[in-house]
Amino acid sequence: MGVLRLSHVEVRVADLELATAYYVEVLGLVEVGHEEGRVYLKCWDEHDHHSVVLRAHPDPGLEHMSFKVEREDDLDELERALARYGCAVRRLAAGEELGQGEAIRTQAPSGHEVELVHSMLRTGNLLPRVNPPPEPQGLAGVHPPRLDHVAVTAEEVEPAAAFFTAVLGFRVTERLVATGGGLLGVWLERSHSPSDLAITGGPSGGLHHFGFWVDDWYEVRRAADVLAYNGVHIETGPTRHGITRSLAVHFFDPSGNRNEIFTGGYRPDPDHEPTTWTEEEIGRAYFHYGGRLDSRFLVTYR
Amino acid sequence: MGVLRLSHVEVRVADLELATAYYVEVLGLVEVGHEEGRVYLKCWDEHDHHSVVLRAHPDPGLEHMSFKVEREDDLDELERALARYGCAVRRLAAGEELGQGEAIRTQAPSGHEVELVHSMLRTGNLLPRVNPPPEPQGLAGVHPPRLDHVAVTAEEVEPAAAFFTAVLGFRVTERLVATGGGLLGVWLERSHSPSDLAITGGPSGGLHHFGFWVDDWYEVRRAADVLAYNGVHIETGPTRHGITRSLAVHFFDPSGNRNEIFTGGYRPDPDHEPTTWTEEEIGRAYFHYGGRLDSRFLVTYR
Amino acid sequence: MGVLRLSHVEVRVADLELATAYYVEVLGLVEVGHEEGRVYLKCWDEHDHHSVVLRAHPDPGLEHMSFKVEREDDLDELERALARYGCAVRRLAAGEELGQGEAIRTQAPSGHEVELVHSMLRTGNLLPRVNPPPEPQGLAGVHPPRLDHVAVTAEEVEPAAAFFTAVLGFRVTERLVATGGGLLGVWLERSHSPSDLAITGGPSGGLHHFGFWVDDWYEVRRAADVLAYNGVHIETGPTRHGITRSLAVHFFDPSGNRNEIFTGGYRPDPDHEPTTWTEEEIGRAYFHYGGRLDSRFLVTYR
Amino acid sequence: MGVLRLSHVEVRVADLELATAYYVEVLGLVEVGHEEGRVYLKCWDEHDHHSVVLRAHPDPGLEHMSFKVEREDDLDELERALARYGCAVRRLAAGEELGQGEAIRTQAPSGHEVELVHSMLRTGNLLPRVNPPPEPQGLAGVHPPRLDHVAVTAEEVEPAAAFFTAVLGFRVTERLVATGGGLLGVWLERSHSPSDLAITGGPSGGLHHFGFWVDDWYEVRRAADVLAYNGVHIETGPTRHGITRSLAVHFFDPSGNRNEIFTGGYRPDPDHEPTTWTEEEIGRAYFHYGGRLDSRFLVTYR
Repeated sequence: MGVLRLSHVEVRVADLELATAYYVEVLGLVEVGHEEGRVYLKCWDEHDHHSVVLRAHPDPGLEHMSFKVEREDDLDELERALARYGCAVRRLAAGEELGQGEAIRTQAPSGHEVELVHSMLRTGNLLPRVNPPPEPQGLAGVHPPRLDHVAVTAEEVEPAAAFFTAVLGFRVTERLVATGGGLLGVWLERSHSPSDLAITGGPSGGLHHFGFWVDDWYEVRRAADVLAYNGVHIETGPTRHGITRSLAVHFFDPSGNRNEIFTGGYRPDPDHEPTTWTEEEIGRAYFHYGGRLDSRFLVTYR
Repeated sequence: MGVLRLSHVEVRVADLELATAYYVEVLGLVEVGHEEGRVYLKCWDEHDHHSVVLRAHPDPGLEHMSFKVEREDDLDELERALARYGCAVRRLAAGEELGQGEAIRTQAPSGHEVELVHSMLRTGNLLPRVNPPPEPQGLAGVHPPRLDHVAVTAEEVEPAAAFFTAVLGFRVTERLVATGGGLLGVWLERSHSPSDLAITGGPSGGLHHFGFWVDDWYEVRRAADVLAYNGVHIETGPTRHGITRSLAVHFFDPSGNRNEIFTGGYRPDPDHEPTTWTEEEIGRAYFHYGGRLDSRFLVTYR
Repeated sequence: MGVLRLSHVEVRVADLELATAYYVEVLGLVEVGHEEGRVYLKCWDEHDHHSVVLRAHPDPGLEHMSFKVEREDDLDELERALARYGCAVRRLAAGEELGQGEAIRTQAPSGHEVELVHSMLRTGNLLPRVNPPPEPQGLAGVHPPRLDHVAVTAEEVEPAAAFFTAVLGFRVTERLVATGGGLLGVWLERSHSPSDLAITGGPSGGLHHFGFWVDDWYEVRRAADVLAYNGVHIETGPTRHGITRSLAVHFFDPSGNRNEIFTGGYRPDPDHEPTTWTEEEIGRAYFHYGGRLDSRFLVTYR
Repeated sequence: MGVLRLSHVEVRVADLELATAYYVEVLGLVEVGHEEGRVYLKCWDEHDHHSVVLRAHPDPGLEHMSFKVEREDDLDELERALARYGCAVRRLAAGEELGQGEAIRTQAPSGHEVELVHSMLRTGNLLPRVNPPPEPQGLAGVHPPRLDHVAVTAEEVEPAAAFFTAVLGFRVTERLVATGGGLLGVWLERSHSPSDLAITGGPSGGLHHFGFWVDDWYEVRRAADVLAYNGVHIETGPTRHGITRSLAVHFFDPSGNRNEIFTGGYRPDPDHEPTTWTEEEIGRAYFHYGGRLDSRFLVTYR
């Protein structure tokens, strides 16, 4: 009941054609539709219509993030909860976004456009329904099986986190606490993974990165080989994050949006107590091996 | 709301001391308590008091399986649902099982003793709560981070599956269908994994195996190396199952209970359509590489 | 000075077109040439002209195996050594085999046609010579970087081994010894790997398998996924051999020649003492995990 | 005939007890002997008496590097070759270095003390000679199976390389060429691996690092986890080098000697043409993913 998981992100790209080539040929996503100024993409193991929308816009950043809810009437219930929290809600008619039923939109206190959707066209993954092999063959580039999480920034992390926990029912898995108190970052989940959504300090409305899952540490490295082969700017990794224990590589799409390929982590119970990281250990919290946080890693786009 | 995941299994072992040595020194679980005729164990990344209970008994098999529910009052609600389904329910007082609050027990139509529990002693995993490393060092043997699922047998798979879906809210992820119709096996989940519980054809009340998660295909092989080093009887693998796409090795504890170490799989949405396997492809459904199902793999213990 | 490594194998295939499709599209080798009744193939990281030759012939098996020698005059020296050993030697003119300089041929006491060659067309691997990436992208199927070894059978293992050690300078790395004495198998090397050549009991002149190297245990499993996807008959694995410690999967080409994809092993010094395996442990010697030797694994083709 | 491979390195450590604790408990080497001011260590899969010697000395750096030759009379032959090249040679009596027979020493034009040895005590690896498992169990820390290579610095790379190729028969596998001509680095082998010895620009007599082999990319990451757990300063990685294609992590012992754990690479033929890297691509030549060479990576110790 309520939010199931991250459904999709809409990101801004300066050159729609170039960005599409990158996401399809290098990252290995599948183009599933397009309309004026937008291209819709999905990963090979996703069953819904799309998980990434590219929108032509001069500046990089996040146009909106969308979470899928379990039941149709969750939308009504969450609309009321949002109203009680003082958030203006806008209804999107079915079809207003390609392949999508009715949805609601609001602006989070973090400055991000947040969408909730229940009904999406079930186009199925790229495998047969009966006696499927474990993976399709011949996919291009990195081809992660699915989008996993989005990491955003907000000037005030605490109220941003409060919104997602109080109204949308997110659970906190990990927290990064400033020496003087206050939150530097928070990791939140609804899908029994360590993070469906992360919020760290930075410009409100900012996008830090969005991350795709792969099944194995070998595949993180293979992703890095594919990226290097294609001249993609790899920022960090392969490495391990202390936070969430995940194994990851970070890099940029041609417009400057940060992407992540990762694996690992753990499976938190809903009654899991959050893990705490302290500012003195921020280096190791982010980059467990090197133990240093390069300030460039904190750059984000609004 | 409702069942969160598999909490623990109680299995029968002929020689409690030998079995404890095996589960602690070879599998690398941690002994957390014992009482007359029982030893309580957990994996290093589990937060609750225990996940495996060994019970001295001449014959191998499953004494009971226990699922954790999200809220205290889920117990009342599920008790009523069980009663409506015609199942006799027994209340266990807090402490009747070591480290455990109140629980309810019933017998499933598959002949298995099923427990539901909410409150367990939160003893924490083996890492610090603040700035934890990703894994403790110096653990013995295989040391999987957690118990993952249990696979049981029933003479009639269909009503067994119906009980778990209708009363306990399990969702079907995969089904193995007989050529003439009817279910040969069903895989069920509550925790966004491909299988918290599997039911296949066999003696009612039977235990096929219980499985522990590891993070990587390398670790499946490392488990096999540890097992072979210790003279453990490895039945199959490392291999891939077609069903659930998982990568696994199967082997036996000293009393003849089948264990599994596995990784992989995928993360099903609750609205995921089940995958279907047909009997003609049963070899590949079980053992994706060899494509043959050895009849010994169907042996189970009551 | 002397034999450097396995250069190539020529294997018999019933249907040349089908076999070529298999070796190119499923195994991912590259076709580098063909002539009436023969197709020449190489792996992507090999620098010489070819490493596998397919020859149209109704029965599967090994037509010849060829070892590369370090210097041109090694051929003369080894020709004299072969003559002293009582072996008839035949000279092949440059070009008699495609892409190849002068070579010598003899029949080993094991009944196999053995070739020694120094000069082969240096066609280079599939990477640029300057600032190369670690691997080409977009290769088909399994695409192992290179051929590694050949395993053959002989009715009398001992004299077969003696020939390769005494005349061609092979060093013994591992030996499988019968309970009553006598050799059941021997593993031999010239290239600082655990086995360039293996000889086990079976029909003289027989081919047990030839093996391709991959870099990682993950790639052994990926090979199995590719093979299963393409309906290839996988006989055993992924598994570990006790002998040579290697990690491998065995399967058959469409004509019934056994192939292997493997990794691991170790790097023996030339002054390494051989490891001994005893017949009582033959199961674990071959299949370290299961510990059983299926008699079908001993089937070979003459 | 001639040099087989790197036998051992003698490195200077400020605190012998602390360094021994690090190499034994964190890296997982085995202490095999000690004498006043020196501790002798080996890796678990090495058959000779030792591969690393720690020598108490206030400054870090390389005391000598030692290569093993195939035959006893190689020492005489190489002594004459060294004399012809104008190098003073000193004979070490058997036993002058622990566990070692007669050896010769000289100073390379690069300023390094180079030893050649044939006879070392064969103490065997940590496995039984008959029916061995693939790896011992219960080893501490990283426990790489063997020392692999040493990387040193010289003000003039070209004459340093010429010495090792002309006198000791090393083969060049890869070269890093300055834009204006001249060698910035050279990778040399004798054991069919991409590098037994590397020489890059820097202070003559300097030690850049010495490297230990592990079998798998997973184990490179596991090494990083062990190192981070123990508070070891990890400088770079896990990453891939463009040069040699190897996968590696670099870190420092408590005295400031750089260590490497790595895997991968390829198996060069002795007639392999060297790969060339150009100065413009020096970032990618060293760090294939990030593509940037941090100047700190060029720091070495004399």
